[in-house]
Amino acid sequence: MKKFLAPQPILLPSPVLIIGTYGDNDAPNIMNAAWGGIAASKPPCISVCIREATLTHHNITKNKAFTVNIPSEKYVKQADYVGLVSGKEYNKFEDTKLTPEKSALVNAPYVKEFPYCLECKLVNTVNVGSHTMFIGEIVGIVADSNVLGKNNLPDIKKVKPIMFGSFGSRGYYGVGKKAGDAFAVGNKIKKPGK
Amino acid sequence: MKKFLAPQPILLPSPVLIIGTYGDNDAPNIMNAAWGGIAASKPPCISVCIREATLTHHNITKNKAFTVNIPSEKYVKQADYVGLVSGKEYNKFEDTKLTPEKSALVNAPYVKEFPYCLECKLVNTVNVGSHTMFIGEIVGIVADSNVLGKNNLPDIKKVKPIMFGSFGSRGYYGVGKKAGDAFAVGNKIKKPGK
Repeated sequence: MKKFLAPQPILLPSPVLIIGTYGDNDAPNIMNAAWGGIAASKPPCISVCIREATLTHHNITKNKAFTVNIPSEKYVKQADYVGLVSGKEYNKFEDTKLTPEKSALVNAPYVKEFPYCLECKLVNTVNVGSHTMFIGEIVGIVADSNVLGKNNLPDIKKVKPIMFGSFGSRGYYGVGKKAGDAFAVGNKIKKPGK
Repeated sequence: MKKFLAPQPILLPSPVLIIGTYGDNDAPNIMNAAWGGIAASKPPCISVCIREATLTHHNITKNKAFTVNIPSEKYVKQADYVGLVSGKEYNKFEDTKLTPEKSALVNAPYVKEFPYCLECKLVNTVNVGSHTMFIGEIVGIVADSNVLGKNNLPDIKKVKPIMFGSFGSRGYYGVGKKAGDAFAVGNKIKKPGK
C-alpha cells in the first residue's frame, strides 16, 4: 500500500562527504556534509550544499577551493564527530587525530588517512533555501594506491565508503553485495525489434 | 602510498535515481541518472543533472516537474535498462513492464513497483558544462507502507536501494552492514573541555 508523506530531504543512499578547507591563518578544517553529488561529467564537477552559519561556508567563499574526502568504514567515528561540532569552536583535525595534507592543486587540505579525495575549485555558487550550493570543478584526485582497481580508478569495494541512511534510520552503512553490472545487466531486458 | 589521478566524476557511493517525466502527448518516461543529490533541507530540494540531448531534459524543461524514484535491489535490471536506451526510441515503461502512476502533486509519473519516490517541482536550472542541473523542490513523498520505520520515514534497510560504484567498478551494489549511529557515534571522540 502506498503512503503519501510530508516532504523531507531524504535520498537513499546519501553520501558522506568530508569537506576540507583552510580558514583564517590557514587553519585546516573538516566538516561532514551529506547534501551533494556529482554535477557534470565534462568538466567533472561536484556540488556540496552547506549552511551559511558554518565555518566551511566562510572558508569556501574566501578560498574558492575545497576538498571532498571519502572516509572508509573504519573512520565512521571521526566522520560523525566532524559533523557534531563546529570548527569555530574546535580544532577537528587535532580532536580526531587525522592529518591535514595540503593539496598540490587547490588551496585546501585533504585528509591523509582517508582513501580517496577530490580536489575542487569553486566554479559556481547557487542559493537553495537553507543551504548554499557550492559547485566545484574536480581538478584532481588523491587516492591510496591500494584502493585502485585494474583500470587505475578507485574500486568501491576497496575504498569501503560509508553512506548516510538519512532520517529514517539515522545510521551509517557500508557497501553491500554487488547487485549487477552497470551498463550491462539491463541488456537482459529484450529491446523491441527496430 | 598516495596516487595523484586525472580528474574524473567519481563519487563513492553515487545514488541510482530513476527520473520520471511526461513527454509530448503525456507519454510517461523514465531514465537512470547517477549525478545528483539533496540540495537543501528547507524547503527540501534535490538536484538531478541531465544531458541536454535526452528526452528527460526536454520533458523537465516543458513540465517544470519530475519524480525521483528509488529502485530496490530486485529492480536492478530495469534500472540499468532505462539508462541504456533513449525514451526517444523506446517505450521504457512497456519494455520493463513497470507501471506509471500519475503523481497527485506534480505533473510527472512515478514508478508504482519502486518502494520510494520524491515528487519534485522545478525551482532552478543551472548549466554545469556537459550537464544541466535541475533543482527540484520535494513537495511530496510516495512510499510503500512496508518500507517505513518506527518514525514513519523510509528505512534504508527496508527500501534496499542500490548504488552506483562508478567507473572504478562499473557495478551496482546493495546496502551493507550498519557502521554506526549518525549524530551519535562521533561522541566517542572526547571533546576538549570548554
